[in-house]
Amino acid sequence: MKSGIITLAHGSGGAESAALMRDVFLPSFNNDVLGELGDSAVVCGAERLAISTDTFVVTPLVFPGGDIGKLAVCGTVNDVLMSGATPRYLTCGFTLEVGLSIELLDTICASLAKAAKEAGVAIIAGDTKVIEGRGEGGGLMISTTGVGTFGDGAGEVMPAGILPGDAIILSGNLGDHHAAILSARMGVKNDIKSDCALLTPIIRALDEAGVDIHAMRDVTRGGLATVLNELAIASKVSIILEEGDIPVSAEVKAFARLMGLDPLYMANEGKVALAVAHADASHALTAVRSTEIGRAAAIIGHAAPSSAAPSAQPPPPSPKSQTFASSADSPIPSSIHSTPPPLSLRTPLGGTIRLDVLYGEGLPRIC
Amino acid sequence: MKSGIITLAHGSGGAESAALMRDVFLPSFNNDVLGELGDSAVVCGAERLAISTDTFVVTPLVFPGGDIGKLAVCGTVNDVLMSGATPRYLTCGFTLEVGLSIELLDTICASLAKAAKEAGVAIIAGDTKVIEGRGEGGGLMISTTGVGTFGDGAGEVMPAGILPGDAIILSGNLGDHHAAILSARMGVKNDIKSDCALLTPIIRALDEAGVDIHAMRDVTRGGLATVLNELAIASKVSIILEEGDIPVSAEVKAFARLMGLDPLYMANEGKVALAVAHADASHALTAVRSTEIGRAAAIIGHAAPSSAAPSAQPPPPSPKSQTFASSADSPIPSSIHSTPPPLSLRTPLGGTIRLDVLYGEGLPRIC
Repeated sequence: MKSGIITLAHGSGGAESAALMRDVFLPSFNNDVLGELGDSAVVCGAERLAISTDTFVVTPLVFPGGDIGKLAVCGTVNDVLMSGATPRYLTCGFTLEVGLSIELLDTICASLAKAAKEAGVAIIAGDTKVIEGRGEGGGLMISTTGVGTFGDGAGEVMPAGILPGDAIILSGNLGDHHAAILSARMGVKNDIKSDCALLTPIIRALDEAGVDIHAMRDVTRGGLATVLNELAIASKVSIILEEGDIPVSAEVKAFARLMGLDPLYMANEGKVALAVAHADASHALTAVRSTEIGRAAAIIGHAAPSSAAPSAQPPPPSPKSQTFASSADSPIPSSIHSTPPPLSLRTPLGGTIRLDVLYGEGLPRIC
Repeated sequence: MKSGIITLAHGSGGAESAALMRDVFLPSFNNDVLGELGDSAVVCGAERLAISTDTFVVTPLVFPGGDIGKLAVCGTVNDVLMSGATPRYLTCGFTLEVGLSIELLDTICASLAKAAKEAGVAIIAGDTKVIEGRGEGGGLMISTTGVGTFGDGAGEVMPAGILPGDAIILSGNLGDHHAAILSARMGVKNDIKSDCALLTPIIRALDEAGVDIHAMRDVTRGGLATVLNELAIASKVSIILEEGDIPVSAEVKAFARLMGLDPLYMANEGKVALAVAHADASHALTAVRSTEIGRAAAIIGHAAPSSAAPSAQPPPPSPKSQTFASSADSPIPSSIHSTPPPLSLRTPLGGTIRLDVLYGEGLPRIC
């Protein structure tokens, strides 16, 4: 893919984003740290550091449940948290469109500062550029880089840490951010709010409960199905989800049905999926549920070996064509079709559906 | 300034940028590290780190002497170098406009990677967002954050380190980047190339020569006059430049005259201004001139006390109204007018002109 042009799908966090990473960015910049493709890079100096970067282009700038300032902090801090590090510092680069209201900029900065304070990160560097407006102008984009440190004895949590038998926990309802942004853009009135939140309380509760987290990732662009595909492939396991156990609010479920959206591929901004040993599962669930943002948490599935003895395996599930994902043109090598897929979903009626990564663009400028 | 709208001048790196920083960003995010307003933030963990962030929005994406990829590395690495640290890591956030040619993106990534290799920094984290195109579309913006470390005994170079009597050295000709970008946009054919370059060889040469650098800053947006105003104010000295000693190429001089531009306020992307003790000046100059990019370096002025005995002071120079700078509505307190200004220029005929920071926008999207 060294020719062609950029389409919105390249920014989706799904299959085309992965192709861009694989064909353009990784070959250009390759090194061991970047190649790990974690949510944060972990580098070694006199002490290890976790570093993550993100650019936020969400529209509208202010939405039910948050704004681009809060989102910029939550998104980057959450990525640093996912490595097991303690977020310490944040840099902010602002790209302002001509015509932006300075009062609005100030409101967004106040929101950003409030979230940074809650996250315990200091904003230590910044940059401002102004560009001509597009359309009606007045837009704003924010690039943030987060730096975290590992305390004495704190271990790095790797995407490849899931073991067969692990329980998969999701910290709450799927699809709230996606549905809130889409509702705001369409002018639809409902009570759906973005779940935009720091995952700090959940990570802290798990830490205090002494839970050993095998792997975790915040569930953002690309949705749960994309994130769990990535973790399953990195960990060389097969994850099986129980459809009936996946939490989605009644409002978002109704909205998604109306819009033809699948909550498994909708974006979230304050959710984490994590793998823990089966024996730790109920203890970990109690810890997550003890937090304000984790009250709807659930055990949604488990990990199985990706290539057990053929006789012990069910036949490969037939691919399902769905709203965003089509496994017909899957980039996954065909050899994998003879073993369990990285991710599958058991429906309440007992069927099993293969879940692929997101194809195409879920919703442009959602974060 | 909590009301009003954003204008291009807010992105100039001059007076309005400073006002935005003072009125909006600093009050929102204030902490000791950010408040130092250095080119890099220096933070302490088990080891000290220098962290700097920048967003690059230059158009055209490829220009004589460089492209946005090379520029993104040089700009951020140079900022980390200015703190006295050794640049180690770089993060890259790409914001791509729909319609961007992937071949062009790949070329720019290759250029970025080449510059990163030369700078000795590893690209360890990244992010990609895609947005709708503006105008003809196909644009690209890059946000980079650089992380540097301080070796054993390496000291942090502070903006406030200039002492009265220090010599001011400029590493080469002014205005090349500004003139090259403007020429490219206007379709003017000439031989002017951007000076876009890593300052690493100059810093290394000074280090090997054992020069004690009192303060330094790379001379980018806002130009030499803005940068030296900032350093003089931070160091509480008055800097006097000798107009006849400031290097500008004959081509840029002619171009600037034609366009009504003042090279003292034009942007550069591979120049550093530094202060060293008078006794070190010729030694330091030799070191800078020993590098490929520093061959046109010159001692361009010196620092004097900012408030000596009144009788020893010349009368305050009358403000000069010039292309970009107007001291009529200067934000500097009027009390300073009874002491030497932070920056002034002695002309070959013997006159002395006060040089203010840049007002308004020099050239939008120059970096």
